[in-house]
Amino acid sequence: MELREKTAKKNYIYKGKIINVRCDDAILPNGKPCIREVVEHPGGVTIAALTEDNELIFEDQFRYAYMDVLLELPAGKLEKGEDPLEAGKRELLEETGYTAKEYTFLGEFYPSCGYTDEIIYLYLAKDLAYSAQKLDEDEFVNVRKIPLEEAFGMVMDNKIPDGKTQAAVMKTYWFVTGGKSDE
Amino acid sequence: MELREKTAKKNYIYKGKIINVRCDDAILPNGKPCIREVVEHPGGVTIAALTEDNELIFEDQFRYAYMDVLLELPAGKLEKGEDPLEAGKRELLEETGYTAKEYTFLGEFYPSCGYTDEIIYLYLAKDLAYSAQKLDEDEFVNVRKIPLEEAFGMVMDNKIPDGKTQAAVMKTYWFVTGGKSDE
Repeated sequence: MELREKTAKKNYIYKGKIINVRCDDAILPNGKPCIREVVEHPGGVTIAALTEDNELIFEDQFRYAYMDVLLELPAGKLEKGEDPLEAGKRELLEETGYTAKEYTFLGEFYPSCGYTDEIIYLYLAKDLAYSAQKLDEDEFVNVRKIPLEEAFGMVMDNKIPDGKTQAAVMKTYWFVTGGKSDE
Repeated sequence: MELREKTAKKNYIYKGKIINVRCDDAILPNGKPCIREVVEHPGGVTIAALTEDNELIFEDQFRYAYMDVLLELPAGKLEKGEDPLEAGKRELLEETGYTAKEYTFLGEFYPSCGYTDEIIYLYLAKDLAYSAQKLDEDEFVNVRKIPLEEAFGMVMDNKIPDGKTQAAVMKTYWFVTGGKSDE
């Protein structure tokens, strides 16, 4: 079955601070017209930073869209054209105060492919050193460590709703506990 | 550290087919005003449907926001007020032609907590029976089966970018292969 759609006309509804929103005129594979809503996002990065004691560095952060405090791995938006790993190093340092000597790419994560074009790049960071947290004046997060095994259990038990955190914790768990042994 | 923000005024920018977009006036924990962009979404459901032979049922589907065909588990939006499990049963039948006798809740998945309020509910479906695919006239997907072990490897090797699919495949893998053994 032919699956691909085409753009007839891009229509910008909103150009905002973090996102742009389009409501495009598109063409279905059967030639019929349709509407496609798209949220444009610059992309993001998430860092699973693992200490020598196999603890992951987490943040409690208020998320306005849910009106709730969520437990997440350190993460941030990419600046325009920014390399995801460099953005990850920056966010890790700013939000948690840690730097890392060793980074491993854990893959890409498309958060909600029905309407957003965001790509989140996941990394594992090891060989950590603490300097000092450098939060922006208007950034509010509480940092805490959770053992990897416990964090994995929390994901499995539906205690960590954030999607990128679920994926990065599970991948890290597999990576660290020997899941790579057959590669 | 106090983390919670407050809404000063909700401002709707766009009310669309699938999403609404707001650009709210909000108040930071330090009392300063700020802007918060929110994409409102009715929520979704994703089904990891596992055959007797330990194969997962996947779909290739064109995703306009990425202008690409993605490999995903069957998924769909919730109708207003719809029970997520009922929506999952409906989507599984419509998109793949399968029904299931046994459903297990795998948890909630917040796809991109920085701007969307979407919640995706993940389920494992077992004891499957095939009747017939009932795609909407304007729905185009190719269905195919992939062994669970292979699908898990594809997630680990960054060959399945879709986030909800990553989470549901990994959770299913541990659920089925004994990852729950220490509970």
